[in-house]
Amino acid sequence: MLCRTIYLSLDPYMRGRMNAGISYARGVELGAVMVGATVSQVVESNLPGYAAGDFVLTANGWQEYGISNGVGARRLDPLQAPISTALGVLGMPGLTAYVGLLDIGQAKPGETVVVSAAAGAVGSVAGQIARIKGCRVVGVAGTEQKCDHVTRELGFDASVNYRREDLDAALKAACPHGIDVYFENVGGRVFEAVLPLLNTFARVPVCGRIATYNLTEPPAGPNQVPSLMSLVLTRRLTLRGFIVFDHATREGDFLREVGGWLRAAQLEYREDIADGLESAVTAFQGLFEGKNLGKLLVRVSHDPTREVQIADFR
Amino acid sequence: MLCRTIYLSLDPYMRGRMNAGISYARGVELGAVMVGATVSQVVESNLPGYAAGDFVLTANGWQEYGISNGVGARRLDPLQAPISTALGVLGMPGLTAYVGLLDIGQAKPGETVVVSAAAGAVGSVAGQIARIKGCRVVGVAGTEQKCDHVTRELGFDASVNYRREDLDAALKAACPHGIDVYFENVGGRVFEAVLPLLNTFARVPVCGRIATYNLTEPPAGPNQVPSLMSLVLTRRLTLRGFIVFDHATREGDFLREVGGWLRAAQLEYREDIADGLESAVTAFQGLFEGKNLGKLLVRVSHDPTREVQIADFR
Repeated sequence: MLCRTIYLSLDPYMRGRMNAGISYARGVELGAVMVGATVSQVVESNLPGYAAGDFVLTANGWQEYGISNGVGARRLDPLQAPISTALGVLGMPGLTAYVGLLDIGQAKPGETVVVSAAAGAVGSVAGQIARIKGCRVVGVAGTEQKCDHVTRELGFDASVNYRREDLDAALKAACPHGIDVYFENVGGRVFEAVLPLLNTFARVPVCGRIATYNLTEPPAGPNQVPSLMSLVLTRRLTLRGFIVFDHATREGDFLREVGGWLRAAQLEYREDIADGLESAVTAFQGLFEGKNLGKLLVRVSHDPTREVQIADFR
Repeated sequence: MLCRTIYLSLDPYMRGRMNAGISYARGVELGAVMVGATVSQVVESNLPGYAAGDFVLTANGWQEYGISNGVGARRLDPLQAPISTALGVLGMPGLTAYVGLLDIGQAKPGETVVVSAAAGAVGSVAGQIARIKGCRVVGVAGTEQKCDHVTRELGFDASVNYRREDLDAALKAACPHGIDVYFENVGGRVFEAVLPLLNTFARVPVCGRIATYNLTEPPAGPNQVPSLMSLVLTRRLTLRGFIVFDHATREGDFLREVGGWLRAAQLEYREDIADGLESAVTAFQGLFEGKNLGKLLVRVSHDPTREVQIADFR
């Protein structure tokens, strides 16, 4: 089927695909279309189950039109949820948050959960699920606006701006009972501030390390690996990396639970939309400077459902 | 009960108790008796269930006589197993190996398991359990004698001397299908050689870091924490610290299984015995230089069961 791209998703994992080496997937060849999830409208279809006019989740990448053979595609019902949410809160970032917090992080009611990149596509969902599950939730983000957003609009118990001089003290004050789960999206300075606060048996789901993706060489010493591993031992920590693709079997549970919370207005989401495919590179670079608030999308072409949804949804 | 110490166990964890700071337990006060597990014979008892002449597992520390109130003590039957094994293969080090490999490491048949400090009290048991469970087992140790011991006497599939110049290449050659479980006892150079060989979804039970216990400051840079955490993410690794005290509920299973293998001669053990309490400090220091082969003990006084056992056991 030939599809017109409406939304292109911009996600941190794409940075890895721009390297020559293998991360968990091979890099994109020079000259090839950059990969990416898209929400599209079918222009012409030879695939059973898809008709012209249908809205579909596809993986057509950074282009205005794409051809899909249906593998990995699915139809979207604009009356169920805004079609753009298939790239965010009800899509891969939402499932990442769900699996990372509950399956990998094993967050339990009453525990303290710290989420980094708390105003981003994954962090905002992870923190809200933790709140709904009865955890004390502390968000870490890079601007006062984001910090306000996660406490006032997303219902986090506290937030800390990682650009503060006194980050360590501020995080400690926000976590009077230590940290039981640290949802790791960023690495770097935030990770260092979290470590001494981790409680015995704390879990660290390692989802992303966005502060380090543009590093070209290891940072200056000393080498803190021995200190980190000593802490892992004495506090019986679990550090566990995960990638959402390995957890597709949880998609049904995720859509049922998170979709339900969304419809019941227990869970909020924000989108940060750049207009036009030509804005994709600048918007993507902004992701690494923390310029977006919420899920970062490129509107590649008009979304004919947009006005309808705003009226119909909730 | 008043007990005469026969054997004093020397274990790496003791190094942490000699620091002023808190590791997972508070340090021993200057002037106090150094802690340690002991196998003793009861001299005089006011405790029900214990009589003069009984052999007991106690925690009387580095002294020739000790008084026990029975907490944490248990009677030993010298006809069931040599009494010294209550400090090694059938004691805390054995349980550590059992829990670390099976519960924390989740080793499965057909997987490759690498064990560091492979000829030591914990590593020798961990590797043999892995062999019995159908894993390919590679031991890492610091002398040719130890390497021969683990392959020839303990049945490991391969061994690597970590003092080799070409450690990375030798370990790679010994692990043609990568590493699924790395049983971490040492840290340092061995840990670094293991990392690039870890397979996707590999588990690293962090049991000890003996190469680092005497560090007084972090080693020179660069800081390898970002590289380590990137690997955790892209390979979906699990690094998990554990301490045997948290797993006492597994003692019954452990004694049944490992005791059975021992009686069936499926599992071997070695003891390295220093004579006299005055030799304890030198022997303990040797632990950090890899001087012992097998479980390190101090024979504080005569073991009246010793000759009997050698005849009766197996």
